[in-house]
Amino acid sequence: MTEGDVLAVEAANESLYAAFEAADLDVMSELWIDGDMSNKARCVHPGSEAIVGRESILRSWALLMANTEYLQFIVTETETVVEGDLAVVTCVENVLSSGGVNRPLGAGRALTTNGFFRVDGVWRLWLHHASPVLSDASDQIGEEP
Amino acid sequence: MTEGDVLAVEAANESLYAAFEAADLDVMSELWIDGDMSNKARCVHPGSEAIVGRESILRSWALLMANTEYLQFIVTETETVVEGDLAVVTCVENVLSSGGVNRPLGAGRALTTNGFFRVDGVWRLWLHHASPVLSDASDQIGEEP
Repeated sequence: MTEGDVLAVEAANESLYAAFEAADLDVMSELWIDGDMSNKARCVHPGSEAIVGRESILRSWALLMANTEYLQFIVTETETVVEGDLAVVTCVENVLSSGGVNRPLGAGRALTTNGFFRVDGVWRLWLHHASPVLSDASDQIGEEP
Repeated sequence: MTEGDVLAVEAANESLYAAFEAADLDVMSELWIDGDMSNKARCVHPGSEAIVGRESILRSWALLMANTEYLQFIVTETETVVEGDLAVVTCVENVLSSGGVNRPLGAGRALTTNGFFRVDGVWRLWLHHASPVLSDASDQIGEEP
């Protein structure tokens, strides 16, 4: 992978958070993959079920945008791998958000894996997987320590 | 990506769950990437913080294996993409587990993204990201609907 590839992928990654902060569904729509891959697009919001398919995913972002009054992301610990036209970014989303009167300002954090495919020279988001950090993960059944 | 590549990646993916079910740390150790990539290895158990680096990750699995008396995975909805020597698998982990007397048998589910690199012809796990499905995700601060 070249440094240029990594920079381009990380710019695409940043545009995800910029689009969400700005509640810009057009930019979000441009970012998510379309065409043949539309049905393979996959989005996991923190703690939620997976949403599969471009249209359902964009609907979920529209809903999130409508329900969020203030939102600021500070994305840290970004690590990017690129191989050919496939890229994976892992990062930490540090979020400051408010849903308005009934949902006061709060801070949160999510651990994220974002997957991209390069289509016609443009990196398009195909996978967004964000997970919550629970204060007591041992309450969850499964593989956690 | 060839069908052979996909099958090989999915076999590696299955070996992760087989190793955990069998509490076989040797197989788990063989599966996780080593060498130059060791420090880039990343593991998120459901609801937990990210663990970075091969040694810390293997310690976490050893602890999980020690604290689990019975474990059975049924992995569903497996989707695999391969590009050159990089592969990403998304799947759903349906788990039946027990930690013994103090932790009765329970069923759970995690949504997972696993990332692999092919090194010397062998697919090695470099990223494991599993996230819990919370009954009420709106309790979490962040991007969830």
